[in-house]
Amino acid sequence: MSEQSLVEWIRRRTGRVRERRVVLGIGDDCAIYRPTPGEDLVFTTDFVIESVHFHSDDPAEACGAKALARGLSDIAAMGAEPRFALISVAGPEERAIRHFYTGLLKWKIPIAGGDVARAQKLTCDVVVCGAVPRGKALQRDGARPGDRIYVSGKLGAAAAREYHVPPVPRPRLDLGRRLRGRATACMDISDGLSTDLLRLCTASGVAGHVERVPAAPGATREQALHGGDDYELLYTGPEGLEGIDIGYVLKGSPAVNVEPRGWDHFTYNGHR
Amino acid sequence: MSEQSLVEWIRRRTGRVRERRVVLGIGDDCAIYRPTPGEDLVFTTDFVIESVHFHSDDPAEACGAKALARGLSDIAAMGAEPRFALISVAGPEERAIRHFYTGLLKWKIPIAGGDVARAQKLTCDVVVCGAVPRGKALQRDGARPGDRIYVSGKLGAAAAREYHVPPVPRPRLDLGRRLRGRATACMDISDGLSTDLLRLCTASGVAGHVERVPAAPGATREQALHGGDDYELLYTGPEGLEGIDIGYVLKGSPAVNVEPRGWDHFTYNGHR
Repeated sequence: MSEQSLVEWIRRRTGRVRERRVVLGIGDDCAIYRPTPGEDLVFTTDFVIESVHFHSDDPAEACGAKALARGLSDIAAMGAEPRFALISVAGPEERAIRHFYTGLLKWKIPIAGGDVARAQKLTCDVVVCGAVPRGKALQRDGARPGDRIYVSGKLGAAAAREYHVPPVPRPRLDLGRRLRGRATACMDISDGLSTDLLRLCTASGVAGHVERVPAAPGATREQALHGGDDYELLYTGPEGLEGIDIGYVLKGSPAVNVEPRGWDHFTYNGHR
Repeated sequence: MSEQSLVEWIRRRTGRVRERRVVLGIGDDCAIYRPTPGEDLVFTTDFVIESVHFHSDDPAEACGAKALARGLSDIAAMGAEPRFALISVAGPEERAIRHFYTGLLKWKIPIAGGDVARAQKLTCDVVVCGAVPRGKALQRDGARPGDRIYVSGKLGAAAAREYHVPPVPRPRLDLGRRLRGRATACMDISDGLSTDLLRLCTASGVAGHVERVPAAPGATREQALHGGDDYELLYTGPEGLEGIDIGYVLKGSPAVNVEPRGWDHFTYNGHR
């Protein structure tokens, strides 16, 4: 088995999902994307590394599905729709790489390119490109005093199962699009509500006050507050937006009334 | 030291190189790029993994410079100019990650985003986005019988030094742009002339005949023929193009008169 044959397999499998703007896909030095006039393109890139972002004994298919879901969740947080992904996967053997790929293909996102290599640990880097009408992307710096704070669902489910997959939650792409022009700020909760809300408040130059923490079935309040990886959105805006109202934005130096104890790759240990 | 502080350091260091089309850089869920009307965007993604793509004892700065050079070489091969890069780096400790970053910043390419994580081996995924006038990208499928085959420089230097860095060769960005509308097919030689010429011929549905193999000082003919990583371009077109003429294209099933023994991640071992 060779790199060439693995790339051929990937090309065949990914060829089933097409996007007319991807005018050249896998097989050349670069993929070519032809932008539609009036669109801004948004880009996210996320590592998914064995025994860092997933457990070595979790099924490779579910890990693949999760790898792309993480990127799609970032696209949702911008209010964008996904256009294509670039998938780089390295691993010790081809079989796991194929299973990983099979899992991520379930999202039906066009794969425009990528890279394969050998490595001791299954390692993936997922890049997703999304598009949004010019100037309409949701950012995390627009929260204003008086805004309500929302989350898109109950939190802590991934933490409660110690980040094992499956299940792989569904990224909130539809909600993200509906929030365009409504939410004042938006991000996805990847590292835990407490840490990510502080990031949103810091970017916006405001303070946040959490009144309630909606916990998923089986999750503790701690897990709901500090656990990440649920692919829920965190956003601010006027009263009455869809979602779960958890508190409010107020004037003041960037701070929140909950201690930020979410995930940080260089200070914590454990699985994510 | 925390992920947040490393990201802050990266944001400060990368903030010095700007591109007006990157309307939102590091710090949100996604970066935002605003395309210029009439441009096609090209994307390449390459893994650079310790003890696979570089030696563990090579200086991290040089490895960082090489990591981005690989991507820029793919951009050159499309005849494009680089617009921005997304850099994901994982490693066992922050210091090596910072050195790695410092090395890749020498190319003065805007860094629009990325990811950082912990991993046992220094692992990087480099995505480069380039732009080319609509429909003008150089591809590898346009070689026609009667074309001459060219390389942009002497080959085998990287193989001769067993792929140690430094030095890091300079990607052929200027040449790539000059070849737009002139070369019929183009790619960069990443896995060795013998293997990559067969790929070009396969993509174009033609045969290739090599008449001479220009070896870099200190490199054997074998190294020049099968070694990669020199960041030279391989291209076809009419007589008289700039570069080193090494043979010709002829009608026939995809084949070349040299055995393809270049790099394949899943059949060879060694350093690249």
